Amino acid sequence: MAMNEYIRQLLSSGEHDFLPSLSVDCVILGFHENQLKVLLLKHRYMDIWALPGGFIYKDEPTDAAAMRVLRERTGLNEIFLRQFYIFGEPERSQREFHIRDLEKDGINVNDDHWILQRFVTIGYYALVEFSKVNLLPYTIAEKSMWWDIHDLPEFMLDHRKILDKAIETLRIQLNYQPIGYNLLPEKFTLTELQNLYETILDKNLDRRNFQRKIISYQILRRLNEKKKGVPHKSPYLHSFDIEKYNDALNKGFNAGW
Amino acid sequence: MAMNEYIRQLLSSGEHDFLPSLSVDCVILGFHENQLKVLLLKHRYMDIWALPGGFIYKDEPTDAAAMRVLRERTGLNEIFLRQFYIFGEPERSQREFHIRDLEKDGINVNDDHWILQRFVTIGYYALVEFSKVNLLPYTIAEKSMWWDIHDLPEFMLDHRKILDKAIETLRIQLNYQPIGYNLLPEKFTLTELQNLYETILDKNLDRRNFQRKIISYQILRRLNEKKKGVPHKSPYLHSFDIEKYNDALNKGFNAGW
Repeated sequence: MAMNEYIRQLLSSGEHDFLPSLSVDCVILGFHENQLKVLLLKHRYMDIWALPGGFIYKDEPTDAAAMRVLRERTGLNEIFLRQFYIFGEPERSQREFHIRDLEKDGINVNDDHWILQRFVTIGYYALVEFSKVNLLPYTIAEKSMWWDIHDLPEFMLDHRKILDKAIETLRIQLNYQPIGYNLLPEKFTLTELQNLYETILDKNLDRRNFQRKIISYQILRRLNEKKKGVPHKSPYLHSFDIEKYNDALNKGFNAGW
Repeated sequence: MAMNEYIRQLLSSGEHDFLPSLSVDCVILGFHENQLKVLLLKHRYMDIWALPGGFIYKDEPTDAAAMRVLRERTGLNEIFLRQFYIFGEPERSQREFHIRDLEKDGINVNDDHWILQRFVTIGYYALVEFSKVNLLPYTIAEKSMWWDIHDLPEFMLDHRKILDKAIETLRIQLNYQPIGYNLLPEKFTLTELQNLYETILDKNLDRRNFQRKIISYQILRRLNEKKKGVPHKSPYLHSFDIEKYNDALNKGFNAGW
């Protein structure tokens, strides 16, 4: 569907199809080669970038809406999304911003149009191994792209604030929940796992301390196999013990990185 | 205002005044004499209990709405409320439940009435010293009451689930944020602080370990004053160093209780 046609359809059926006042926005963080990246969509007219977001069908759970929006917008599927914050300030909804865009689309809407109302948005985040993702062409953005979180573009509306809050939440959660499944290859070294933690926390961790702690949570299985092609002493490969990993996800622990 | 009049007014102006689809529910936890209690409102016809909740004005920040609802419903003011979760399942909104109540009120509403729509609710929680609270008579409930969290009544709709999620969240946050301000008297002993932690965590903590950790966070000031009327050796009184306490609130630490 062409972009303009998609927008016209959304504007005409949105009020009937979706819960009023509510939207979802997804912070999709990708990890690859010790870089943390975020998936952003380019605005259709300006060089500003947005989180993948959308609306909630009237009979749809909010969590399912976030998952669907992500699938529709990016082709990503079966990702564990987690709600992390509600952005509920009235000022975040900027009517003029949307009116200007729609004028460029050649579309006029009434002052009381559904799309111009105030939206409270539910922030969701997910972590993925970003090299595994095939981005789909998206109907409402010129393109989607992974951006290094240390080198970000200008954002649309309050989306930078939503991203920052997601990363802050993730860093805190790292202190009481395991992380890494879906982000690392099936078999990995402890150094690769440490790199992931260091990248998310944005700080260096003591190697011996990290290894002692992470092993003590008993979420890892050391394989009878060593990493090849590494200079000097080859390190052992590990994998997650998924049962214990999920158990730790639910019960939590206290790492204090 | 009499209860019935209040309800009629809400029903007639609600659609105009409030954001559609969204509500707030407040989990107010009170601590007193080593007991953790929750503030609940009795349903106007049944012996089931509800969290104080309400709606969001069209131009009101969601956080401010939670604060206002709490003030209106309970007389509590200037409490630090924190959003902790969105409850977004369609099944949580039960039309028949409200239709039945309104019939008993002698009020008939149309099938498409605002009050019968689906509501996504934002859960907020707060901690207070409950002996300091003067509960106000409430317009829509027969009475409000503190309930021990180990001895709870039957709940309205999904409110038990909301309470459980709040307590779960609080226990996790206790591991990386200080707690106690607003909950303890200005001067307190380390044993009183430990009792608070033990009550929230619902488990015993090792005394020496607790004291060493809590002192290491440097959020406390030991006063040159001892607790009186205590058998055996009188313990020192402490107070919070509010600047450092707030600093720890923002930056977090890693306790791992």
